[in-house]
Amino acid sequence: MDILEGRRCVLPALQARQRKIQLVLLKQNAAPTRIAEIVELAKSHNVPVKFAPQSEIDALTQGRSHGGIAAICHPKEPLAGKALIELIEKTDEPAFLLLIEGTEDAQNLGYTLRTAEAMGVHAVLLKKHVWNFDSAALSRSSSGAFERLPMVQIEHIERELLPLKKLGIRFYGCIANAKRTLYDVNLTEPALLAIGGERRGLSGAFRQHCDRFVRIPMPQHSATSLSLSQAACVVMAEGMRQRFSLQMQLEMEPPANT
Amino acid sequence: MDILEGRRCVLPALQARQRKIQLVLLKQNAAPTRIAEIVELAKSHNVPVKFAPQSEIDALTQGRSHGGIAAICHPKEPLAGKALIELIEKTDEPAFLLLIEGTEDAQNLGYTLRTAEAMGVHAVLLKKHVWNFDSAALSRSSSGAFERLPMVQIEHIERELLPLKKLGIRFYGCIANAKRTLYDVNLTEPALLAIGGERRGLSGAFRQHCDRFVRIPMPQHSATSLSLSQAACVVMAEGMRQRFSLQMQLEMEPPANT
Repeated sequence: MDILEGRRCVLPALQARQRKIQLVLLKQNAAPTRIAEIVELAKSHNVPVKFAPQSEIDALTQGRSHGGIAAICHPKEPLAGKALIELIEKTDEPAFLLLIEGTEDAQNLGYTLRTAEAMGVHAVLLKKHVWNFDSAALSRSSSGAFERLPMVQIEHIERELLPLKKLGIRFYGCIANAKRTLYDVNLTEPALLAIGGERRGLSGAFRQHCDRFVRIPMPQHSATSLSLSQAACVVMAEGMRQRFSLQMQLEMEPPANT
Repeated sequence: MDILEGRRCVLPALQARQRKIQLVLLKQNAAPTRIAEIVELAKSHNVPVKFAPQSEIDALTQGRSHGGIAAICHPKEPLAGKALIELIEKTDEPAFLLLIEGTEDAQNLGYTLRTAEAMGVHAVLLKKHVWNFDSAALSRSSSGAFERLPMVQIEHIERELLPLKKLGIRFYGCIANAKRTLYDVNLTEPALLAIGGERRGLSGAFRQHCDRFVRIPMPQHSATSLSLSQAACVVMAEGMRQRFSLQMQLEMEPPANT
């Protein structure tokens, strides 16, 4: 069971309905305005609510930031291969997916999920061996994006990723020494952006399925590299920029009947 | 005094020479290949080196990641106003500055500095009240970028920032409800990008000096916002992209004498 702490995790979990919530705990005498939305959502989803003393919530939670709100939940189920295909087919935008092969820690993965959601990514794919994160920490550091974003677990590259190619999704592998930069490719078409782990980079197993490799250009005098989450942020931001710019262009064009 | 831990902090501090290092500590019997560069740099900069038992380095440091390498240093001095002007004048690229008005924590500020360096930012400006970070933690989380990047302390906006305007640097304030997006402005010209704190946004005092306000466009259905460090990353990446694209264009043009 996961213990979600604080309004900014419990509320998204209730809204997103991507995992079963067993019990919501609220501090006795909590300000009604603070908890009204949670109480109402819990009621409409048939989730029991218990008003408990502060000490009980303290004992259940790890941090000191729960603010009198916690929930006991089942782990979030990853989206299985078929459900991902359905999700992509029903989205009316060209697919925009992020695959992360390694992670630094729950906090950084959380930031990446938060960015992914803000940049309009439709689903985040994680290799199975990195699926051992502390999901309560992830929910917290992602400001709830983990609760809302479809998360896919990749166990067999062939079995789970190749069907995506059949949908016309191009795989872009981000590697440091690629000839092309991120700015040389068209990310307005259906795209999967793949980022390797910070130490090892993208795996050979995945590289052989990439349609294109791209790099983030860096100034020659730069002594550093980007962290995984910052690299992911730059890559997703470019996808968002291209899609946003295309949309602006389309909106500027006069409709055919004028 | 600051205690720097690990090769990835001590080496950049020795290389960057932006702060006085009192003593370098190395574990007795450390592998010569691992410490050769540090020993040589310390020698050439007249920094004493002490070979100490592991327990002595453990007692001095906080983390467990020092790997037998530590240094006792004076705090890094911020760049004063005049030195910043000199730095800008001697750089042969259009100025590219980042101003951060609030910070989340040393780790996130460190990631932002690492990104700033990787994106070609020339200096990072911080308000004086956020200059109370744990600089050893900052050095670590920035992978040494803190040691190398010129850091400016802003105490009086008028006194320290207005001279930058006289150099032709435009101030871009990033705010959520700006009319223009980041993609509507020319960041290849001398630019200062300003990001407010995550909770309060950009201060009124700074806003009145901004030439333009810009926002990061987000999908309408997005339930989240970006963290400060991810917002800074998106903004800097766009500056880098524009500068890189311009440079590529210039390199593609045939020289005048062919």
